[in-house]
Amino acid sequence: MDSNSVSPMPELAPIAEFDKSPPSPPNEEVPMDDLPPPPATISQAEGKKLKVQRSRSYDSEEHERGACEWCEYALVITLATILLIGVSALTIFWTFFYREGYGWADDIPEKQFNLHPTLMIAGFITFSGFSVLLYRICRCFRRIYVKLLHAIFHALAFPCIVIGFLAVLDFHNKKGINNFYSLHSWIGFVAMGLFGLQYAVGFFSFLLLLICNKGTANFRASLVPIHAAFGVLTFVLGVCACLTGLTEKALFTLGADRYSGLPDEGVIINAIGVAIIAILAVVMYILSRNKFRADARDMRASVDL
Amino acid sequence: MDSNSVSPMPELAPIAEFDKSPPSPPNEEVPMDDLPPPPATISQAEGKKLKVQRSRSYDSEEHERGACEWCEYALVITLATILLIGVSALTIFWTFFYREGYGWADDIPEKQFNLHPTLMIAGFITFSGFSVLLYRICRCFRRIYVKLLHAIFHALAFPCIVIGFLAVLDFHNKKGINNFYSLHSWIGFVAMGLFGLQYAVGFFSFLLLLICNKGTANFRASLVPIHAAFGVLTFVLGVCACLTGLTEKALFTLGADRYSGLPDEGVIINAIGVAIIAILAVVMYILSRNKFRADARDMRASVDL
Repeated sequence: MDSNSVSPMPELAPIAEFDKSPPSPPNEEVPMDDLPPPPATISQAEGKKLKVQRSRSYDSEEHERGACEWCEYALVITLATILLIGVSALTIFWTFFYREGYGWADDIPEKQFNLHPTLMIAGFITFSGFSVLLYRICRCFRRIYVKLLHAIFHALAFPCIVIGFLAVLDFHNKKGINNFYSLHSWIGFVAMGLFGLQYAVGFFSFLLLLICNKGTANFRASLVPIHAAFGVLTFVLGVCACLTGLTEKALFTLGADRYSGLPDEGVIINAIGVAIIAILAVVMYILSRNKFRADARDMRASVDL
Repeated sequence: MDSNSVSPMPELAPIAEFDKSPPSPPNEEVPMDDLPPPPATISQAEGKKLKVQRSRSYDSEEHERGACEWCEYALVITLATILLIGVSALTIFWTFFYREGYGWADDIPEKQFNLHPTLMIAGFITFSGFSVLLYRICRCFRRIYVKLLHAIFHALAFPCIVIGFLAVLDFHNKKGINNFYSLHSWIGFVAMGLFGLQYAVGFFSFLLLLICNKGTANFRASLVPIHAAFGVLTFVLGVCACLTGLTEKALFTLGADRYSGLPDEGVIINAIGVAIIAILAVVMYILSRNKFRADARDMRASVDL
């Protein structure tokens, strides 16, 4: 790992979009001997020119990428994609193979409940995970397209979470079970609230306010770290809600005695939980690696969008 | 929030300790007019002197702290301290008031089990939380003392986790319950493994290797981001293990029917979970704020330790 990037979870969102200052100097200073010899007299204009040359040399150093780094990049993206799709696929497999599939208005309310874990894992883990990762790792697109992808994946997560919530609410009402009594439901409620708030603030501030791009740049820049920090918190709360929900489901449907014998269905439920933990680890790893960030230079180039 | 610090969870550990380069320039460049006028001729030595002057002016700008910032600092530390002590106090209250207290070799194995949630929450949340926070926010001590505090709080967490683990293992064996079947136990096992590995690597690399300070500086610097990233992951896994464990405990001891009526004990168990979530949010907030970091200048001053 690069000795200069020590952030376990740095920014999700690009402050550099608003940053027109030259990039920070690298750890090893460029020795004076490597620069062109100073002229006999130096004017302010020449001083500025020299400074631009130096900042360009930092730029080229900063953006030099080795084959090893590209391999790590490809490996982590592949792993994240497999896990994010795999966890939803495994949940659907579990539902069809062990829980009789899905339904809404038929005679078996349990089939309606089955929509809850599937849609919540799709919304809070798969789509939200892709949204966070794409924002972080998309290097080649223009910044506005990355923002749109981020918004689209969260837009896909939104109906999943709403329908997943309505499914369990309706199931509880049909079966006469109280709502919002468990720790899982409390965590889920906070996670849903934060998700909605984040989506509204993000959509308004980072997409709608682009209508008045220059005038709102400072406001948007000041909002980026808050949006990023609450985004990570929402994702982690989503993970906690899913894990407590899986624990509840295993104990409700299998019962403590059967679960302790670790039947096939118990292994599948645990495997879904382990996949969610693995996704959390990969997401945190990607967020901790400054090298995975979209190039600051590319972001500056798209400052008008 | 400062427009330049967008990291939701930047480093826990000070790379700046090994960083002898001047600090990064602030977002707003110092205008050329503010500098002394360039001399008619400029030598390399004079160029270096000018550079040192500029880096000093950046330093003083960087470390200017307003009353508002100190208020936020004091408020967050107070909140974190109340939550970290409060969550363990609430767990002890729950055990004595509803679960008949603690025991080991007596006739009631349930009293032995009670050590498990109390010690795991003390180890993974209270002591680990203090350890992470103290590392991040201690501004006034020398770096070596901060490292020692970090190690001491983890050293306090270590026996809690070991005894907490042995308590549940022995309880399961006495009651004839299988071990390591639930999602909670799988997450806890990974969290314990990571905790042990992190402690061993951290103790060896950041304390023992100080015997050969200069010779191991590069190795230690390269290890800092890995140690910091895995440290945050271990803390989050500890949180997940505690939340799934509380969910299991509520369903095992209260049963689904009683728990859904939300009796007093159910509220206490949920409140412990909510306090853990609040601690997670505060820790992530503190890690996201670059301003809470110990001053880079102070860390550079203690480079020999």
